[in-house]
Amino acid sequence: MYNFRTDLALERRNIYKKAHSLEEIDGIDVQEEKANENINISKVIVTNQNGAEAIGKPIGTYVTIDINNLRIASEDDIQASAEAVSKELKELIQKHSDKKDEILVVGLGNVYVTPDSLGPKVIKDIDVTKHILKYMPQYLPEDARPVTAISPGVLGTTGIETVEIIKGIVDNTHPKLLIVIDALASRSINRISSTIQIADTGITPGAGVGNTRKELSQTTLGIPVIAIGIPTVVDLATITDDCLDLFITKLQNEAQSNDYLNKLKENDNYEEIKEALMPEDFNMIVTPKEIDDLIENMSSVVARGINISM
Amino acid sequence: MYNFRTDLALERRNIYKKAHSLEEIDGIDVQEEKANENINISKVIVTNQNGAEAIGKPIGTYVTIDINNLRIASEDDIQASAEAVSKELKELIQKHSDKKDEILVVGLGNVYVTPDSLGPKVIKDIDVTKHILKYMPQYLPEDARPVTAISPGVLGTTGIETVEIIKGIVDNTHPKLLIVIDALASRSINRISSTIQIADTGITPGAGVGNTRKELSQTTLGIPVIAIGIPTVVDLATITDDCLDLFITKLQNEAQSNDYLNKLKENDNYEEIKEALMPEDFNMIVTPKEIDDLIENMSSVVARGINISM
Amino acid sequence: MYNFRTDLALERRNIYKKAHSLEEIDGIDVQEEKANENINISKVIVTNQNGAEAIGKPIGTYVTIDINNLRIASEDDIQASAEAVSKELKELIQKHSDKKDEILVVGLGNVYVTPDSLGPKVIKDIDVTKHILKYMPQYLPEDARPVTAISPGVLGTTGIETVEIIKGIVDNTHPKLLIVIDALASRSINRISSTIQIADTGITPGAGVGNTRKELSQTTLGIPVIAIGIPTVVDLATITDDCLDLFITKLQNEAQSNDYLNKLKENDNYEEIKEALMPEDFNMIVTPKEIDDLIENMSSVVARGINISM
Amino acid sequence: MYNFRTDLALERRNIYKKAHSLEEIDGIDVQEEKANENINISKVIVTNQNGAEAIGKPIGTYVTIDINNLRIASEDDIQASAEAVSKELKELIQKHSDKKDEILVVGLGNVYVTPDSLGPKVIKDIDVTKHILKYMPQYLPEDARPVTAISPGVLGTTGIETVEIIKGIVDNTHPKLLIVIDALASRSINRISSTIQIADTGITPGAGVGNTRKELSQTTLGIPVIAIGIPTVVDLATITDDCLDLFITKLQNEAQSNDYLNKLKENDNYEEIKEALMPEDFNMIVTPKEIDDLIENMSSVVARGINISM
Repeated sequence: MYNFRTDLALERRNIYKKAHSLEEIDGIDVQEEKANENINISKVIVTNQNGAEAIGKPIGTYVTIDINNLRIASEDDIQASAEAVSKELKELIQKHSDKKDEILVVGLGNVYVTPDSLGPKVIKDIDVTKHILKYMPQYLPEDARPVTAISPGVLGTTGIETVEIIKGIVDNTHPKLLIVIDALASRSINRISSTIQIADTGITPGAGVGNTRKELSQTTLGIPVIAIGIPTVVDLATITDDCLDLFITKLQNEAQSNDYLNKLKENDNYEEIKEALMPEDFNMIVTPKEIDDLIENMSSVVARGINISM
Repeated sequence: MYNFRTDLALERRNIYKKAHSLEEIDGIDVQEEKANENINISKVIVTNQNGAEAIGKPIGTYVTIDINNLRIASEDDIQASAEAVSKELKELIQKHSDKKDEILVVGLGNVYVTPDSLGPKVIKDIDVTKHILKYMPQYLPEDARPVTAISPGVLGTTGIETVEIIKGIVDNTHPKLLIVIDALASRSINRISSTIQIADTGITPGAGVGNTRKELSQTTLGIPVIAIGIPTVVDLATITDDCLDLFITKLQNEAQSNDYLNKLKENDNYEEIKEALMPEDFNMIVTPKEIDDLIENMSSVVARGINISM
Repeated sequence: MYNFRTDLALERRNIYKKAHSLEEIDGIDVQEEKANENINISKVIVTNQNGAEAIGKPIGTYVTIDINNLRIASEDDIQASAEAVSKELKELIQKHSDKKDEILVVGLGNVYVTPDSLGPKVIKDIDVTKHILKYMPQYLPEDARPVTAISPGVLGTTGIETVEIIKGIVDNTHPKLLIVIDALASRSINRISSTIQIADTGITPGAGVGNTRKELSQTTLGIPVIAIGIPTVVDLATITDDCLDLFITKLQNEAQSNDYLNKLKENDNYEEIKEALMPEDFNMIVTPKEIDDLIENMSSVVARGINISM
Repeated sequence: MYNFRTDLALERRNIYKKAHSLEEIDGIDVQEEKANENINISKVIVTNQNGAEAIGKPIGTYVTIDINNLRIASEDDIQASAEAVSKELKELIQKHSDKKDEILVVGLGNVYVTPDSLGPKVIKDIDVTKHILKYMPQYLPEDARPVTAISPGVLGTTGIETVEIIKGIVDNTHPKLLIVIDALASRSINRISSTIQIADTGITPGAGVGNTRKELSQTTLGIPVIAIGIPTVVDLATITDDCLDLFITKLQNEAQSNDYLNKLKENDNYEEIKEALMPEDFNMIVTPKEIDDLIENMSSVVARGINISM
């Protein structure tokens, strides 16, 4: 498979389309709409195996919500964004569960590492109800849905594969549907903590950064999994790749093209440059300086979006 | 059972002894020692059923470590305290597990509520190894023990009984021993985030504050459970109780004694005063203003104590 | 002066009235109104020297805003509360400054000690404008007021009297009006992070807890000072005092009254009990367990209230 | 002046030397030593105006301390690093002040933005003494130096130029020496929160990121200023510049050299590429994912280094 360096179905479709100079990919439909002047919604629907193979994503629907200027969002912007999330999320919840089915919300990530703290921060604000339904049902409407939530930590702090923790909890508490919040890889700096992808085809924790750990999906957990993914960092390697691609394209455009440059671009053989730029021991990330505020606002959007969907 | 308003075996034994004017309780042995001038260690050993009933604690050993001036502790004080914890903890670990048996460390509490954040903060600093043993064993000594750790949240934020979360993870990852860090109730303000009780008889989350949720113990989880408990708050009701008891004693001592006062003291009938003092909707706690620093230092002591015991 | 153990003019007036069995105090007017079902506003107007001496507060207006259930406040409740604060604050601002006069907002307290972090948290959310008016005036309306803000820390972390820091900044940047946010002492647990007192008679940092440091006022700084005070803790000594007073009253009411009890109540001679309850080295405070959430919501109310008053 | 894109005298000297193919620059001496296997110390001494102009830094001494693996530093590593800092710092303090002269320590930066929080975090741990010398001198040795500390915030949160705040405090409290902790720009990702530069030639807040605000120096404040600077981020533009320079060098080395490439390298004319990579509204930074831990350890090193120098 092509190394897309992004988990966003929309970006993958754009990269594939451009690389193959296609009008549209067979097996992929795209719909665009605006919720308001600051919120764009795109749906990438993978309808057949050809589409699935082209972008390396299972057949299903991938909703992308882009929010402009989330860093300086007003209370009204956050509410409008949460409602846009809820509208899309509700559709998927209704498709996969009945009105009173128990839902478990899982926030992946590490609360002590700012760019990785979004999942745990969302969990903090989820309105859990299962214990109230059990001990004080009079405080909830009669048709309230049992909701639970957990932030399981990451492999580096628990020593346990996330899927094993979640499987243990699912097997022991029997929810009917899982909603997982996770960080995604994206190609675009603009999308950091400003874009939300909602899909019902599961998730692979750490997929974005080259780890190959077991997925959270109906296959591994036995219940449907809705994934809410948000890009929170861009890998530095992605930026340098893009930088050099742009540069080579520029050289070629300016009639400096030659076989050597073409070969360079094809072969991805500037590893040595990346090595010179990046120390071995660190995961270098690119992030806006304002990442703390962006994470704060995005976690409000996602938590509210989930709460009003229950 | 008498309402001791404390989870510390040592305080319960003292209260019982005084109330019954005993030299010592049949079925309870107490040993005292000093690790250094700032660290006192007491062992309450409950040896028979009479002792167990007297203080409402199962037969077993309860080690209490008191650290003076932890708030302003130097690096050396913290290290000495961690070593005292480790010495006692190692004995219990060796009693209940083999050298390479997997251990799961569980930190109870809510990371977002300062006086309840000790458990999660300890987990942050536990050296987990199971994933390294699996993926990069060359980085660890050959006889390294697999260690995992989790901070499961509290019922109010997850909607799930803590025992159900832990049982799911235990059933799915198969550790041989559990170490649980939890907050305890204490009678004494001096002990807030300055005392550690270590016991191998399990734990009931929230026991200290009147909740009756299922215990974490060999009975419910199928593996031995070592509990590390630290008082982090004192309930306001405990303080007002103690305040009025002291006052009535004073009146009696000063020859103001009469039947009415005696009856008051027996019957615990100043509920109306507590109601007047305390708003219904809140859990009022008494805490040193320096609680943030105390929690920080205590979590270093406990995390290091565990790490050097593995 | 009577030891009121509270900085709230309203509580002092109530204590004084009750102690002297008065209908109302000469020189004190009180007006009550409701902003909505959850927000009560009381104005204590000290009109002459007799009133000032009775409650130990200078002649002036003291507005008290009480907000019910702030801990679980919705976004709408917070907005309504902020508007109530703004309405009262605007009146005082207009009385003491012209429309485009520069205002410096000062948040007292220690950001690293949860119950003392309100002032710094408010400052974080103040919309400062002076630098924008200087460097990018096109982004602000033409009549925008220059606003600056600072959180100077506390004596224990800076080594400098707060008034000296503020005086240095005032002398060097020349604002025309100061707004100071500070913690207050209160008698009532119910008021913790739920009540706001606004006054234009200055402030003495740490006054609530028995420290006697220099005041922030027109006298010391040369410009008018509006104080926004919020109770965030209750001293444990206050609670035990109230506890014993209630108890003695109960004994007296139940016909157990005698000279000895009367004398006890007058003489405040149960110091020994307080000493037995409270360790010497700590400032013991009483606080709701939910203090983190209360501080969060109150800082939103105050910051918004200030921002919409500018 | 050449755009060095770094505030480190050592990096500037290396860039200048390489660009001009010099053995050493006239007016610059460099001494290297190792404190231990993990700590390297370099002193760049600018001895004349030629050296000063070459690297754009005033005549004076610039000490660079590089610490390996600070992210995973043990307690012993942190102590050794703090002692290395203290050794260099003491020399400068003794040069500019007498033993009992008052020192004000200033931590620049924004505590709410992780990569910018180092200054405020250091201030939190400075042992201030001026108030103790005033109120409780018996708790300090007779020759204790008065130390004060402040974290004034940043222009974006206060609306006030930092130099104006500090000047106000200096004029009002009369310290004899200022120590300022600030973030620096560096060319090297390896140096993020791992390198410390100590100099006695003052500081320009935000100099590293292209802002031109007034300096903190003897000229503006009237007292000597020792600057402790730590790189905490690398600007994304620096990375892409370095990336393209490396690439062009590679092309040239591989005999693809031609006039066009040479011109490209000279003219710095790939602005359009940087624009395509970087959104306008954000300050994009490159940082290790582990920045929270790095900042934590570095602030311990600097705070201890200062405390043991007093």
